Amino acid sequence: MRHHKLALCGEHYSEWFVNSTQRAIEKYKMFKPDANILVAVSGGKDSLALWDVLARLGYKADGLYIGLGIQGEIDYSDQSLACIRNFAQQNVPNAQLHVVDIAETYGKTIPEISRASTRGHGKPCSACGLTKRYVMNRLAAERGYDVLATGHNLDDEAAVLMQNTLHWQTGYLARQAPVLEASDGLAKKVKPFCRFYERETATYAVVRNIEYVYDECPHAVGNLTNFYKTLLNQLEAESPGAKLSFYVEFLKARQAGFFQAPADKSNLHACEVCGQPTTAPGRCAFCRMWNITAASGGALISPDAIAVRGDDAFDDVETRVAETVDVSGL
Amino acid sequence: MRHHKLALCGEHYSEWFVNSTQRAIEKYKMFKPDANILVAVSGGKDSLALWDVLARLGYKADGLYIGLGIQGEIDYSDQSLACIRNFAQQNVPNAQLHVVDIAETYGKTIPEISRASTRGHGKPCSACGLTKRYVMNRLAAERGYDVLATGHNLDDEAAVLMQNTLHWQTGYLARQAPVLEASDGLAKKVKPFCRFYERETATYAVVRNIEYVYDECPHAVGNLTNFYKTLLNQLEAESPGAKLSFYVEFLKARQAGFFQAPADKSNLHACEVCGQPTTAPGRCAFCRMWNITAASGGALISPDAIAVRGDDAFDDVETRVAETVDVSGL
Repeated sequence: MRHHKLALCGEHYSEWFVNSTQRAIEKYKMFKPDANILVAVSGGKDSLALWDVLARLGYKADGLYIGLGIQGEIDYSDQSLACIRNFAQQNVPNAQLHVVDIAETYGKTIPEISRASTRGHGKPCSACGLTKRYVMNRLAAERGYDVLATGHNLDDEAAVLMQNTLHWQTGYLARQAPVLEASDGLAKKVKPFCRFYERETATYAVVRNIEYVYDECPHAVGNLTNFYKTLLNQLEAESPGAKLSFYVEFLKARQAGFFQAPADKSNLHACEVCGQPTTAPGRCAFCRMWNITAASGGALISPDAIAVRGDDAFDDVETRVAETVDVSGL
Repeated sequence: MRHHKLALCGEHYSEWFVNSTQRAIEKYKMFKPDANILVAVSGGKDSLALWDVLARLGYKADGLYIGLGIQGEIDYSDQSLACIRNFAQQNVPNAQLHVVDIAETYGKTIPEISRASTRGHGKPCSACGLTKRYVMNRLAAERGYDVLATGHNLDDEAAVLMQNTLHWQTGYLARQAPVLEASDGLAKKVKPFCRFYERETATYAVVRNIEYVYDECPHAVGNLTNFYKTLLNQLEAESPGAKLSFYVEFLKARQAGFFQAPADKSNLHACEVCGQPTTAPGRCAFCRMWNITAASGGALISPDAIAVRGDDAFDDVETRVAETVDVSGL
């Protein structure tokens, strides 16, 4: 760890990593020791490492996997779920894993709904982001989780910060933070890894023998976020610690009141179909994109679509529905 | 001009460039038609182009050249002055050129005072910046100029903005603007070329047959500003117009009150030796660095040190002192 001037063996690295996560949780007031935490897991190194660390720290943390139906060279989504199940069985045997399969639930995979929609100029990323945010929020709120945790690392946060800064997206800048408080039916969101370099979360995953999906989403290759990551890597190479400083100094300036959020002209109210908070009049963006109407009753998740994993389930990856729960309201 | 989708011949390019400058002057309320303007000229393309454009627009604009005594492969400072004199004779024959030679005035060149000082970690750039700002301010104020104009272009401004942003230098961010109003004896400063890409000012200089010093200062090679310029050029190549958008959106956010300047704890008062405004108690940073004391009376510019050029002077580059003026107070 060049910027910390530290050289550690695997065991001490792991200890440093876990303790640093706890310090970030406390520093940014993410959650209390008895919180019910929902970790959004993709099958990548960051989210699996996060679930692992939270469990080792003694937190009650369940997982949520959203099956997007993305293929690519390696059958991306299926391989992701296999990694997660394998990890869960070995590392967090007492936790639950929620699985929401988008195609089973809403009738189309993400690439399919993207092609059918006008969002995103032919790229599925916009439809994917909207869908994931919706499902995460809704599941967290309806299952009574106190907080939704994601594995965003420093490279992710710095790239988004760079993007928001280069366009001076004042609304986004004023809101970008390791903690987004709950409001009007939106779950509280936290990023306990926001101060870790990507190479640090990768090292933790390796040290802990966590098997994860190495490839990034095939649709993310060459996107703008990766371009900003490349720029920031050049900066870091020129001046070690620059990425951390960029992000942390931003948070300090924000905390000191340097940014004045533009007046929020939007009012959240309930979507007339699903009841989730939205700024749009009538139906929310999610219900519009998926063409969910009042006529369909809003009960768009089939009872089988969410699998909840108990302690002894998941011996077989194919057994997706371990325990059926009533999700008619979801 | 890729981001404007314009293709122009030399004559129309020059017309577009001059008119755009006038629009920037008005948009940012830089100065009125009858203002007394002092243009800081280095001998590079930007400052000579600026002097040229202001004269063509009918403004009363004089020049100030500060001889820094910088050598390098081409005898940088002497060649700069030769370019400026040649330009002035041909393009602005009715304007005055003030020349302040630092070695003649203060006894050392910039590289020499830099070596004798603790500023700048062995690089002369910090000593140079301090000295130039001091001389520009003092000359503008004492000769009754309304405004000091510099040739900073968009690439310069965007690089400084990037540097201030990457470190979230909130004080600098809140102050970075095309216009810095006069205050407490500090001259008003303006940057009429702040919206021009560097390649645009270079094109103007070529179209107008302006001979300028191509090389940048030998001490600037490889500095951090140039590193940021390289990053921004990559961004521009990926997304044409990104550099302009980065700077202009920043100015808009600033104008809309997005940034809250940190409380200014510093009070300007007069340096006890030279009388120029300073935040330091006692002597200002300039007098300290140059070791100017009350005992030396503060009259540190010799009467010959400032040359003022009339209409018919400067036939010979060697004849530096064309007209001696009383500068004992400077």
